[in-house]
Amino acid sequence: MIKVGVVGGTGYTGVELLRLLALHPQVRLTAITSRGEAGLPVAEMFPSLRGRVDLRFVTPQEAALEQCDVVFFATPNGIAMKQAAELVAAGVRVIDLAADFRIRDVAEWQKWYGMEHAAPELVAEAVYGLPEVNREQIRSARIVANPGCYPTAVQLGFLPLIEAGVIDPAHLVADAKSGVSGAGRKAEVHTLFAEAADSFKAYGVPGHRHLPEIRQGLARAAQGEVGLTFVPHLTPMIRGIHATLYGRLKAEADLQALFEQRYAAEPFVDVLPTGSHPETRSVRASNMCRIAVHRPQGQDVVVVLSVIDNLVKGAAGQAVQNMNIMFGCEETLGLDIVPVSP
Amino acid sequence: MIKVGVVGGTGYTGVELLRLLALHPQVRLTAITSRGEAGLPVAEMFPSLRGRVDLRFVTPQEAALEQCDVVFFATPNGIAMKQAAELVAAGVRVIDLAADFRIRDVAEWQKWYGMEHAAPELVAEAVYGLPEVNREQIRSARIVANPGCYPTAVQLGFLPLIEAGVIDPAHLVADAKSGVSGAGRKAEVHTLFAEAADSFKAYGVPGHRHLPEIRQGLARAAQGEVGLTFVPHLTPMIRGIHATLYGRLKAEADLQALFEQRYAAEPFVDVLPTGSHPETRSVRASNMCRIAVHRPQGQDVVVVLSVIDNLVKGAAGQAVQNMNIMFGCEETLGLDIVPVSP
Amino acid sequence: MIKVGVVGGTGYTGVELLRLLALHPQVRLTAITSRGEAGLPVAEMFPSLRGRVDLRFVTPQEAALEQCDVVFFATPNGIAMKQAAELVAAGVRVIDLAADFRIRDVAEWQKWYGMEHAAPELVAEAVYGLPEVNREQIRSARIVANPGCYPTAVQLGFLPLIEAGVIDPAHLVADAKSGVSGAGRKAEVHTLFAEAADSFKAYGVPGHRHLPEIRQGLARAAQGEVGLTFVPHLTPMIRGIHATLYGRLKAEADLQALFEQRYAAEPFVDVLPTGSHPETRSVRASNMCRIAVHRPQGQDVVVVLSVIDNLVKGAAGQAVQNMNIMFGCEETLGLDIVPVSP
Amino acid sequence: MIKVGVVGGTGYTGVELLRLLALHPQVRLTAITSRGEAGLPVAEMFPSLRGRVDLRFVTPQEAALEQCDVVFFATPNGIAMKQAAELVAAGVRVIDLAADFRIRDVAEWQKWYGMEHAAPELVAEAVYGLPEVNREQIRSARIVANPGCYPTAVQLGFLPLIEAGVIDPAHLVADAKSGVSGAGRKAEVHTLFAEAADSFKAYGVPGHRHLPEIRQGLARAAQGEVGLTFVPHLTPMIRGIHATLYGRLKAEADLQALFEQRYAAEPFVDVLPTGSHPETRSVRASNMCRIAVHRPQGQDVVVVLSVIDNLVKGAAGQAVQNMNIMFGCEETLGLDIVPVSP
Repeated sequence: MIKVGVVGGTGYTGVELLRLLALHPQVRLTAITSRGEAGLPVAEMFPSLRGRVDLRFVTPQEAALEQCDVVFFATPNGIAMKQAAELVAAGVRVIDLAADFRIRDVAEWQKWYGMEHAAPELVAEAVYGLPEVNREQIRSARIVANPGCYPTAVQLGFLPLIEAGVIDPAHLVADAKSGVSGAGRKAEVHTLFAEAADSFKAYGVPGHRHLPEIRQGLARAAQGEVGLTFVPHLTPMIRGIHATLYGRLKAEADLQALFEQRYAAEPFVDVLPTGSHPETRSVRASNMCRIAVHRPQGQDVVVVLSVIDNLVKGAAGQAVQNMNIMFGCEETLGLDIVPVSP
Repeated sequence: MIKVGVVGGTGYTGVELLRLLALHPQVRLTAITSRGEAGLPVAEMFPSLRGRVDLRFVTPQEAALEQCDVVFFATPNGIAMKQAAELVAAGVRVIDLAADFRIRDVAEWQKWYGMEHAAPELVAEAVYGLPEVNREQIRSARIVANPGCYPTAVQLGFLPLIEAGVIDPAHLVADAKSGVSGAGRKAEVHTLFAEAADSFKAYGVPGHRHLPEIRQGLARAAQGEVGLTFVPHLTPMIRGIHATLYGRLKAEADLQALFEQRYAAEPFVDVLPTGSHPETRSVRASNMCRIAVHRPQGQDVVVVLSVIDNLVKGAAGQAVQNMNIMFGCEETLGLDIVPVSP
Repeated sequence: MIKVGVVGGTGYTGVELLRLLALHPQVRLTAITSRGEAGLPVAEMFPSLRGRVDLRFVTPQEAALEQCDVVFFATPNGIAMKQAAELVAAGVRVIDLAADFRIRDVAEWQKWYGMEHAAPELVAEAVYGLPEVNREQIRSARIVANPGCYPTAVQLGFLPLIEAGVIDPAHLVADAKSGVSGAGRKAEVHTLFAEAADSFKAYGVPGHRHLPEIRQGLARAAQGEVGLTFVPHLTPMIRGIHATLYGRLKAEADLQALFEQRYAAEPFVDVLPTGSHPETRSVRASNMCRIAVHRPQGQDVVVVLSVIDNLVKGAAGQAVQNMNIMFGCEETLGLDIVPVSP
Repeated sequence: MIKVGVVGGTGYTGVELLRLLALHPQVRLTAITSRGEAGLPVAEMFPSLRGRVDLRFVTPQEAALEQCDVVFFATPNGIAMKQAAELVAAGVRVIDLAADFRIRDVAEWQKWYGMEHAAPELVAEAVYGLPEVNREQIRSARIVANPGCYPTAVQLGFLPLIEAGVIDPAHLVADAKSGVSGAGRKAEVHTLFAEAADSFKAYGVPGHRHLPEIRQGLARAAQGEVGLTFVPHLTPMIRGIHATLYGRLKAEADLQALFEQRYAAEPFVDVLPTGSHPETRSVRASNMCRIAVHRPQGQDVVVVLSVIDNLVKGAAGQAVQNMNIMFGCEETLGLDIVPVSP
């Protein structure tokens, strides 16, 4: 059994992690920390976990995290970077669901996240936890930087095209739409039901923190700089990301075959038949990414549609997938979920 | 392994049944019938089932249902009553998710359902599949009449009070609210998104088909007639039923203890602590019913709040629960789901 | 022209009031106060008002409210009671959209609202602003207590029955459902989109502040005590209240005629034909209340369905209606809105 | 008074047209036709119109449309082309809200709409009713082809850039998101609430009928061919279109000034301040188009955000705007609506 600790279990990635871990046959959940809620039974805050998670929130001090095999950070940005070193030194493996270890260029990270990085040396060591790219490095990683939700959907959609060199990497457009749970479980006016329901808007057009993360991943695949315009949008739904990706073809290719081959062995990427339009609900509550590739009217523009559940493949599910890889479990263990639809 | 056939797999109870059966460790799904869609891969109609259900829809003729151990009818009302006799004669057990066998008074059934009953003799034999009431009879049943969604939520909420004789059975009010999936996957104007979203309405106030079913169940518990006003409402959500139940106290009782004792051994009924207000999302995608009981301001009115997922405990999940009981499986097998929230 | 000031224009009743006042032909909007947002153009906070409201928020000090003809308080409870006396003394008429002047029994008010009342003498003077009951007193009122949203829908639904003495006032049930905007524009977790969407729950079953307000209104009509069970619910829609009301008939009556006669002259109450089920969207964005009355299966229970837009007839629209009455305008002036549907 | 007839008033553009016409001070509504619903009071189908529209649906024969000043066709594609000639010959002016007269290249129209055009000569005469482009021709038009919803949002967003020649017209991307009412009030499975809620998808990526219409409009402005990739998406909201537009800059320009100048005199186009992100709800129920222009990180890509209410500026409101222009009314008459938000 893998002894698991969760730091910061009061947000949406936290409760989703608990949903998945509660049923994982190889996991023993030992501590869930929350400074603010210490003492409260977890299932009192999240009634969906009644009968499933019997723990109470504890303070970090009480948690004895150093005795865990792995600790998940489901915290705001800037927490894991302060606590990971000590855990790693104690032999605990760390999976950070926030952004602290995602950007290899620390100066760039500091610019976008507006704070000084507390552990640049760990950034260098951390493995970016996109299994479809870094599976081998994840196996032995001491720190995994679990990817952001938009970056997961966008990279999985663009990678086959960029790796194969069939689109112009200088002019990529990623138009992405997210459900409101992506904004987290914070009391804020703009994500109130009466603000966000029955409406649609873009946000962060001048610059969103997921831009450098996506750019880094695509640049690695392109083996050079990429030009990317990334526009996120808020959609009146709870879960789901739909990335609509546009690239200019610079070489002929059987696009459908390209995608099918790239992801043939991937348990969590499903390439849909030609002509398909994936819906976000087709992956709801599951760790699946479904992708369709189009070339409208045979012109030189390729359009990729990529959907994930932002809280699963875009956060907690991918974190569990990474844990499975790190601990030698079947990669799909505990993630064998049929999407909930309707 | 239990060989399972599904008749009519193109509606919401059908696809939900497939979601649950696909992961059930003791089930081998052998045939899914649909006259209209014969030949179509099931996963093409329901992409959420890609990689999970590899069958195609077949005609009833091709289905060889008589070789199944159990056949679920996820059909409109009036189908199972025509086909069940032959299956039962062939030794196949039948679980009907529609209403054909729910009402013991055939004349009453005919009045509410507007057709002649094709198999009154089977009505007499069929067991009403509410495990919390009829578990023992279900074990050996050849035909199980799976309860309606409203009747499940309303009966589970009223039963402890009526069985204990603490409320006046002559003046019961059940104000119930359902998500739109309860109306089924039929192309109709009134359940279009642009009609049903961001709006709320009652319907069927003069009389709804679930009224006689609820009345029958409560009368059995009351060992006498009951007076029930039942008003269903359409709520702009996909899944979920919330029943708000009102009864007049005629005897003092520890209401909380009454509910906790009644359901102490039930795996799928969760009595919440005093003062709780269950949300439908706390049971989303799961087979759980969560109940809270209130006595506002200490007056003589008891208010019960009862929530289920209409497609699970209100349909497909309860059907699987019944199958488990019929075939001697652990009752929770394949239903060990943590609700999806948010 | 009526010189109008608005105190507290940053919430939903505030912005709705501005929507209505912006088009009112007899209104000159002179000041909108907000301590927190002073200096900010109103249309920057509410882009829907761009080109319609050119004012900036000002502090109460800058607002010169004493020069207005009427001041609306769209503030949290407990504000108007502190400021109204001075305005009234200066000859300004006051319409309070909060609860400060709604409950005549000050001790009762203090119990439910958890604070000491700052102006009990004004409570005695204030007129409860339900035009369908108090139209004549409103004309000359110096202070109008604008009714709550639930109380408006529930009272309009029950009044014809109680005034006519055809139902038992000791056993009334009001099961009410509200859109989320009813909770206001406050940053709180439980009204976040990801919390409130695709879910349904009751709240405040042990006791809601609108209970004493409704009870007071019904008792006045009954000329005696009433027994009322009131259960509010949160519905995943932005606007709208649907009240489902249950009463026990104690005398025979032509219920349809009773309602039609009671509201024959009312511009904002629409009694639907027999057998109707009003949807909240049929009044969306308008000041209308639509009502249907049923007697299911001819039993002794009468069911009334009453819908309003909680922000209009349940708040800002009714406030404008009251202003029209107070200033001798046509009662429908500025409220001549066709509901927005779909 | 303008005598107005409406052909086909049972869909969403029809009921929205009636909402607007009911309050238009210069309109006398004389007939609303529907073969299927002839005899039914309009307000019985649309309770939101109770007390506002007292007409019954009539057959085209009974309608005496030739005595109208103007007839609106709120019909499926292919109806107006058969009936317009006769009306025009009788001196009646025609505004077609469907697509029959939008595409000047009849062969192209026939390819996309899959039917033979019944009145090619009227196509040549018809004026494309986008007032921001064709206001002068609209004044005297006998037939106005009211633009599609997507084409309105996309053209208004791209036009300033293309007319000024600052973006490369060969590589335009329009990623557009629509509320579900855009699909019409037809009983279809894919637009059921339980299908379309809480989910997001692209559709028509291989080719959507609005593509040639947009391309025609942009080509006119570019005075030459344009290369456009257009991807529409279905969003779980009732009303609203959000178009996110991408163009490659080929010349330096003050983009903000460009937009402000282009639309300085337009009553229904609102250019937001630099850095804005318009929400669809900021135009809900109104005829306004709100636009923001961005140049992320100073790169060579311009991003335009353009929002409309698909049923108003994208259909019925624009039709009324055209009528106002045709009959010499103030252009904003009857369209003086403050958007409904929240």
